[in-house]
Amino acid sequence: MYSEGPIRQYLDDAASGGPTPGGGSVSALVGALGSTMACMSANFTIGKKKYRDVEEECKQILARCEANYKKLLELTDADTKAYSHVSKAYAMTKDTPEEKAARTEAIQKALRIAMDVPLQAFRACAAVINDLDRLADIANKNLISDVGVAALHAFAGLRGCKLNVEINLAYIKDEEFANKHQEEIDAAENRAKRIADAVIGKVYAAIKKN
Amino acid sequence: MYSEGPIRQYLDDAASGGPTPGGGSVSALVGALGSTMACMSANFTIGKKKYRDVEEECKQILARCEANYKKLLELTDADTKAYSHVSKAYAMTKDTPEEKAARTEAIQKALRIAMDVPLQAFRACAAVINDLDRLADIANKNLISDVGVAALHAFAGLRGCKLNVEINLAYIKDEEFANKHQEEIDAAENRAKRIADAVIGKVYAAIKKN
Repeated sequence: MYSEGPIRQYLDDAASGGPTPGGGSVSALVGALGSTMACMSANFTIGKKKYRDVEEECKQILARCEANYKKLLELTDADTKAYSHVSKAYAMTKDTPEEKAARTEAIQKALRIAMDVPLQAFRACAAVINDLDRLADIANKNLISDVGVAALHAFAGLRGCKLNVEINLAYIKDEEFANKHQEEIDAAENRAKRIADAVIGKVYAAIKKN
Repeated sequence: MYSEGPIRQYLDDAASGGPTPGGGSVSALVGALGSTMACMSANFTIGKKKYRDVEEECKQILARCEANYKKLLELTDADTKAYSHVSKAYAMTKDTPEEKAARTEAIQKALRIAMDVPLQAFRACAAVINDLDRLADIANKNLISDVGVAALHAFAGLRGCKLNVEINLAYIKDEEFANKHQEEIDAAENRAKRIADAVIGKVYAAIKKN
């Protein structure tokens, strides 16, 4: 489990010529890092007299973003396993028509499993970005740059996860299934981009006021 | 040293109500994660017969991106220390005019130290993005989505580091110093954005061809 191991080890393995951790795992981790910055901003708002009016709302955002970074960390680990299904399926023999058909079916099945991990991570990143919209308005002003950092990394995580969904979708032969998922992630990316851009705009407006 | 500790611990501490690791540290780490994906793509290209013509070039890119992720990991640790200078300076007494002047001077000095860490990380992210421009053209086509992931995270890291330079710059009273640095990072961000967008464009063009 990479999540319990040292950061340096994860980076060294990611950089190496081994297959894992790859882009899906790394993107889930980047999303998790973004989510922690949302939590930190909420934590520095909760319990402050000046922000008492928004305390309850901050607690709800904190609970969701905590769940999301933990989920994203799980997916950081899970992605390294999902990948092995695909490579095992590709390694199946294809000498007879029966073997060929079984291999194709196994590949198609493995692709859906491999796609599911970055898709879950994509959705968790989108959920974090949703919460940042409000957090940028109510969080402790001293932490405003961290809300911006949260938006940058949650959105980069989302786009990285999307790319990893899409490389699997490109090989999935069920067009209806592929199109349905492509539409979902395109729409969610557009929505997330609008929110992330608005959050970063608010952050810069707050910094310039100093 | 966070780099030698478990990933989960880093995330838990980042999310907590403690001051470190904050947005600067997290952004350096995101940049490091981007850089590892450049290394992985280079590693899967080196030694392959099909890519023999670009092997030497890939080795040079790999060496630079390896140095950059190691540098960014160092800065992930360093940022958590730089911050403490600023909070110590702000905590100085200011009862007499002499104390006030000494405090102001200490704050101004600490801000420059605190700014230097994300500035170095910003430059390392920019260097990674520079290398991705060529890597997107020559890397093993099976790894093309990872080159895209590298671009996304190196650029998110760069923007996060920039934000952390800027929050320090906003309090630095030496306008010439502040303007000089603002111009440098604005120009470098624009350049990096052009490259990162072009890389991601190439990645999507390659995926759609499947």
